[in-house]
Amino acid sequence: MAAALGARGARVRLLAALRGGSRSLAAQPSDSQLLTPEERNQILLDLKNAGWSELSERNAIYKEFSFKNFNQAFGFMSRVALQAEKINHHPEWFNVYNKVQITLTSHDCGGLTKRDVQLAKFIEKASIFV
Amino acid sequence: MAAALGARGARVRLLAALRGGSRSLAAQPSDSQLLTPEERNQILLDLKNAGWSELSERNAIYKEFSFKNFNQAFGFMSRVALQAEKINHHPEWFNVYNKVQITLTSHDCGGLTKRDVQLAKFIEKASIFV
Amino acid sequence: MAAALGARGARVRLLAALRGGSRSLAAQPSDSQLLTPEERNQILLDLKNAGWSELSERNAIYKEFSFKNFNQAFGFMSRVALQAEKINHHPEWFNVYNKVQITLTSHDCGGLTKRDVQLAKFIEKASIFV
Amino acid sequence: MAAALGARGARVRLLAALRGGSRSLAAQPSDSQLLTPEERNQILLDLKNAGWSELSERNAIYKEFSFKNFNQAFGFMSRVALQAEKINHHPEWFNVYNKVQITLTSHDCGGLTKRDVQLAKFIEKASIFV
Repeated sequence: MAAALGARGARVRLLAALRGGSRSLAAQPSDSQLLTPEERNQILLDLKNAGWSELSERNAIYKEFSFKNFNQAFGFMSRVALQAEKINHHPEWFNVYNKVQITLTSHDCGGLTKRDVQLAKFIEKASIFV
Repeated sequence: MAAALGARGARVRLLAALRGGSRSLAAQPSDSQLLTPEERNQILLDLKNAGWSELSERNAIYKEFSFKNFNQAFGFMSRVALQAEKINHHPEWFNVYNKVQITLTSHDCGGLTKRDVQLAKFIEKASIFV
Repeated sequence: MAAALGARGARVRLLAALRGGSRSLAAQPSDSQLLTPEERNQILLDLKNAGWSELSERNAIYKEFSFKNFNQAFGFMSRVALQAEKINHHPEWFNVYNKVQITLTSHDCGGLTKRDVQLAKFIEKASIFV
Repeated sequence: MAAALGARGARVRLLAALRGGSRSLAAQPSDSQLLTPEERNQILLDLKNAGWSELSERNAIYKEFSFKNFNQAFGFMSRVALQAEKINHHPEWFNVYNKVQITLTSHDCGGLTKRDVQLAKFIEKASIFV
């Protein structure tokens, strides 16, 4: 289990909310624009409910994932790596054994864009092990 | 979902049966001995119920896994690779896009050993995506 | 060392020949068109010199890579997987321990396209371990 | 190229020095003992020449690797992950795009052991791309 049990309901809501946008995972030019304040507020609400937090010192979001062992942690990282390379948007991440700490931001824009939201959405899905 | 839904019950039974042996995943010297006929019959019954089949031309077992896409397929392969390297027992496998076909045998013994069963057990667990 | 020493000169020539096209690795629409007979002849000459062969029964190219151990083989596969996902063009491949056998073709076109050549070029580079 | 050119000579010396011990990569019980002061001094000299540094605040060693792109960086990480799982000794590491920062220590011993040296040796070899 990748996250505290209490976060599962929030994660399901996040995925549903994000699905509402019916966006494909292929990056669009507009994906690299900063989120509008309205988009940002709504998205951050959903992400926070799923366990993500805003970094106070940078315009970025952060979440720590805890897996059963290194095998699960690095299997998760392999899936995120494939997706990151596909959409050309890469995380900042730290790992030791079963822990993976992920920070997402759009370096070229200095803030959060739809690409970060897309990647966060993928990360949530890939973090679930049974 | 890595396997047909009908196989889920069999998989759960397989995992339970294998757990009964209360073996750790660390390889033991005896793990590289051929299975006795009794062990072989019981294990093959469990494995067949989970979708594995015996190859007629070789003393080996085989299963095809079908995932949603390449990301899931290769994420699965990454986890199996880490486990294979850990127990020093490697699969023969073929992949194209979302398909992974796996053959297990103990090359040094010319047949099935507990290592194959251990790896099959791990593979079953790692093949489940939600 | 991923390939027989004798293939190194051919590989360098292949990479130089392919570089001549000054193509980026990002897939273009025209990349999914079948190669013209002239392109095909030239490319196949270069690829054969680097150790690739044409399959007689299918319109596809094939090469077997032999590494020092499973660690090198799967590290190589991880790099190829990331590239394949990035350009949305995936190999058919088989692995056992230190061996990786790769078949490339464009399933949707029923033959060889520039995508196969691009992926073969990447695979050659990623196959070199020191 | 994984490291500044100036570090190549030091790396070759390090590998030669470590090879001198003719140790296999399989972990031994004694591998988890803290290094003696003499071993520690000699090893740290070799590692520092190869670009590793001692952390002042912890009994650990650290090095940053810089690759050409994410593909090389994560291919490198995949190889290190396989080796870490094999010897059951895992790094603390951070990645963003082409950068990989690695800290090695033996958490259970609170300091440097032969396992850290073995893993550092493997990491040096796996960090070289042509």
